[in-house]
Amino acid sequence: MPEFFNVMPPQQALQTLLARLDVSLPRASECISLTVSLGRATSTDIISPETLPAFPRSTVDGFSVNAIDTFGATPGLPSYLEVIGEVSMGKPPSISLNTGQTAVTYTGGMLADRADAVVMIEDTQQIDEHTVEVLRPVAIGENMVHPGEDVHAGDTIIAQGKIIRPQDIGALQSVGINHIRATKKPRVALLSMGDEVISSDQTPIVGQIRDINTHTISAMISQSGGIPIPLGIARDDFDEQLKMAKSGLSEADILVFSAGSSVSIRDITADIINALGDPGVIIHGLSLKPGKPAIIGIIDQKPVFGLPGNPVSAMIVFDLLIRPTIYQLAGCKFPPEPSTVIAQLGANIPSAPGREDYVPVKLENSDVSIIAHPILGKSNLIYTLARADGLIQVPIDKSGLYEGDFVKVRLF
Amino acid sequence: MPEFFNVMPPQQALQTLLARLDVSLPRASECISLTVSLGRATSTDIISPETLPAFPRSTVDGFSVNAIDTFGATPGLPSYLEVIGEVSMGKPPSISLNTGQTAVTYTGGMLADRADAVVMIEDTQQIDEHTVEVLRPVAIGENMVHPGEDVHAGDTIIAQGKIIRPQDIGALQSVGINHIRATKKPRVALLSMGDEVISSDQTPIVGQIRDINTHTISAMISQSGGIPIPLGIARDDFDEQLKMAKSGLSEADILVFSAGSSVSIRDITADIINALGDPGVIIHGLSLKPGKPAIIGIIDQKPVFGLPGNPVSAMIVFDLLIRPTIYQLAGCKFPPEPSTVIAQLGANIPSAPGREDYVPVKLENSDVSIIAHPILGKSNLIYTLARADGLIQVPIDKSGLYEGDFVKVRLF
Repeated sequence: MPEFFNVMPPQQALQTLLARLDVSLPRASECISLTVSLGRATSTDIISPETLPAFPRSTVDGFSVNAIDTFGATPGLPSYLEVIGEVSMGKPPSISLNTGQTAVTYTGGMLADRADAVVMIEDTQQIDEHTVEVLRPVAIGENMVHPGEDVHAGDTIIAQGKIIRPQDIGALQSVGINHIRATKKPRVALLSMGDEVISSDQTPIVGQIRDINTHTISAMISQSGGIPIPLGIARDDFDEQLKMAKSGLSEADILVFSAGSSVSIRDITADIINALGDPGVIIHGLSLKPGKPAIIGIIDQKPVFGLPGNPVSAMIVFDLLIRPTIYQLAGCKFPPEPSTVIAQLGANIPSAPGREDYVPVKLENSDVSIIAHPILGKSNLIYTLARADGLIQVPIDKSGLYEGDFVKVRLF
Repeated sequence: MPEFFNVMPPQQALQTLLARLDVSLPRASECISLTVSLGRATSTDIISPETLPAFPRSTVDGFSVNAIDTFGATPGLPSYLEVIGEVSMGKPPSISLNTGQTAVTYTGGMLADRADAVVMIEDTQQIDEHTVEVLRPVAIGENMVHPGEDVHAGDTIIAQGKIIRPQDIGALQSVGINHIRATKKPRVALLSMGDEVISSDQTPIVGQIRDINTHTISAMISQSGGIPIPLGIARDDFDEQLKMAKSGLSEADILVFSAGSSVSIRDITADIINALGDPGVIIHGLSLKPGKPAIIGIIDQKPVFGLPGNPVSAMIVFDLLIRPTIYQLAGCKFPPEPSTVIAQLGANIPSAPGREDYVPVKLENSDVSIIAHPILGKSNLIYTLARADGLIQVPIDKSGLYEGDFVKVRLF
C-alpha cells in the first residue's frame, strides 16, 4: 500500500523551506557592467558619489530672471527686461545678471549667474534683440531645479536586493556609476528521469514520450533569473539517478528532479534525495491540484525539488515554489509581481476544500468585462496550458467557484 | 512665438501611426531553435505533425483492466483479477488482456493491449503475485488518456503572431518540433542629441549632463523584444544630426531621437524628420503629462519618434507609443499585458482635464490594501522613477484623483 501523504499547503511548504535555509550565508556576487544589469539583483546598497543636478537647471525654454523683476507683470502691463545674452548649453555660464537683466536659457541648461527663476518663452514677447516683455510673474525657484533636488552625494540610491529596472540604470549612470556588484545568478540543475522518456530531438517508438519538462522548466528558470543546467535523462535506476544527481548538485545551487515523484513503486526520488545528504526530504506532498506529489528537500543548504512528471503539474509547482526560491537565492528582496488581470468566470469550477486548485483559463474580451473560460480536462496535458492564457486559483477553503464570479487570472 | 501645438491623446496618436503603416508588408523572419525562442513571435501558424498521445496512456500507477471486470466492486465484495505481468515503461506492450486479467501499469506508461481503463493502486489490494482485489469500479476510459486527446496531427498548435512561452516550447517539442520561424526582432536606432549631453562614462563639467536616455531606452527596447542600436550623441547641429539619423535609419526598422523635441529655438528634430523623407512628421505634441512635446513621424514606412529630453517623459512616451510599435513590427498580435496592481491612493492628485497625466507612486502594504503614495515633484527627475514602484494614470476627462480612490498601478 502507498505511504501516507502528509500534504502541506504550497505557501506553507515554501515558508518551511525558506525558513530552513540559512539567510546569513553570504551569496556570491560579481561586478557587472550596467549594460548587462537589467533584471539582476544588487548585492549591496549603492550610494551616490555625486549631487544631481550639479548646477541650477532650467526645466523650460525661456529667460533666466530675478523673480523680483517680474512681480506684477501682466499682458497689459508687462515687465521690460534687458536681454544681455544667451546661456550656452554644456558650458559654464559667462553671464551674470544685474537688476532688470535677463538671458536666454534652454531646457536642461544652466541658469545665468545670480538668476533665481526662469520665465517660459510662452509667457514672453521679444521686442527686439535686446528687450523682452515678461507677461506673467514667476516665483523664486519657478521653472528650475535646484542643485541636489534629484539626489545628494551620500544618498542610498538603490537598496541591496533590488532588481535593476531601466530607470535604475539611468539613475546610476546619471551620477557616473557604470558598474555594480550583483548577486550571481543561481544555477539550477535539472534531471529528467524515466525509462519511457527520450530526448526531444529523437523519434519515439510506441510507449516512449519526448522529454519536455527539461525545456519548459529551463525556460521558466531563465525567466526567473536563474541559469538552467540540464543534466539529461536518467533511466529508472537508483545508482544512475544518484550519480547524475550528485554531479548536478555539486555544480548547482538548486537541484530539480522531473518525474518519479508520484507515490509509486517506481518512486525512488525521495530515496535519492535522502541518499544525497542531510537533512534530505523535508516535505513530501502538497495540498495542491495539480502538483500533489511534489517533494521538497534540502542537501547541505541547497534546495532540492522533485517535480511530478506531468508537464502542467511541473510548471505549476515550479511557479509556486521554485521561482520564489530562485529569487531568494538571487538575493532579491522584492521579486517582481506576476502579471494578473481581473476577469469573470465563464463556467462553474468544482473543487474539493482542503486543497488549492489551479485551473487553466482562456480569456475572451466581452463588452463589459474579460471572460475567463476554464479549460477542463481529466488529465494534465501540455496542450491544456499551451491553449490557455492564464491560471486561476480556487482557494484551499472553497469548494469551487461560480460562473460570473470575479477572479484574478495569473497570466501564464 | 512658439508654434501652436495640435496635441493628440496618446492612444489616438498610436492608432494614427499604426494605421499608416502598411501591415501587408511581409516582416522578415528567421528559423530559430526552440532553445532560444522564449519571448519571440511566430511568423507562421504552426501545425502539429503528430498525434499526442500516440498511445493510450495511464494517468495513475495501478492496473490495466477491462472496466466491465470491475463493475460492482466494493471493499466488502471486491473483484478478483489475475495479474499476468507488467507493462514496461518505454516499450510496446507485450501483454494482452483476456476477461478477468490485469497487468501492472505506471503513470505515463501504456495500457496493456485490449484494456480500456486503469484502476488506481490505492483502490486495490494485492493478494499474491498473481492476484489482485479491485475495491472500486472504474468506468471505461477512467484514469487514462486516449490517443489524440492532447493534440491531433494537422491541428494548428500555435497561431501566427503569438509570443512563445515556456509551455509553448513544451507543446512544440512534444510533437517533435525543435525549430520555428520567428519574425526578426525589430532594430531600433537611438540618437541622443544636445551640446550639453556627454557620454555616461565621461565626467561632466559645470553645465553638462550625462546621457542617460540612451541606456534607459535601450533597456526598454530590449524588454520589448527589440534590438537597441545606440548611435551616440549628436551636437546641436542640423547637418550632423541629419547625417547620423540617416545612417541610423538605413540600418534600423525604427528611429528614436532623444531630446530636442520641445517647442524651442533649439528644436530641429521635426525639421530633421521632415528632411529624412516622406511623409515626415505626422503628429507633433501629445495631450500627455509628462511627454507633451513628443513627435511622431514616418519615413518610408519606418516609424520615427522624437522623445522629450527629460528621462521620465522619455520613458513614459516609450511605454505608451514605442513599446506597442515594436510589438507591431515584431509581428506580435497579442503583446504581453503590463503588470498591474490595484491600490488605494495615499493623497489627492490634481490634474487638468483634457490631458492624460502619469504620476509615479511608491507602494506600501497596509492592513487592508496596498497604498499608492504619489511622488510629486515640480520636474521630471530620473530619481522620481528610480524611487517609484509604478505609475498611475489620471484619465483625460478627470480633473484629478482623490485620496482613498482605488487606482490601477502599472508596475514600472
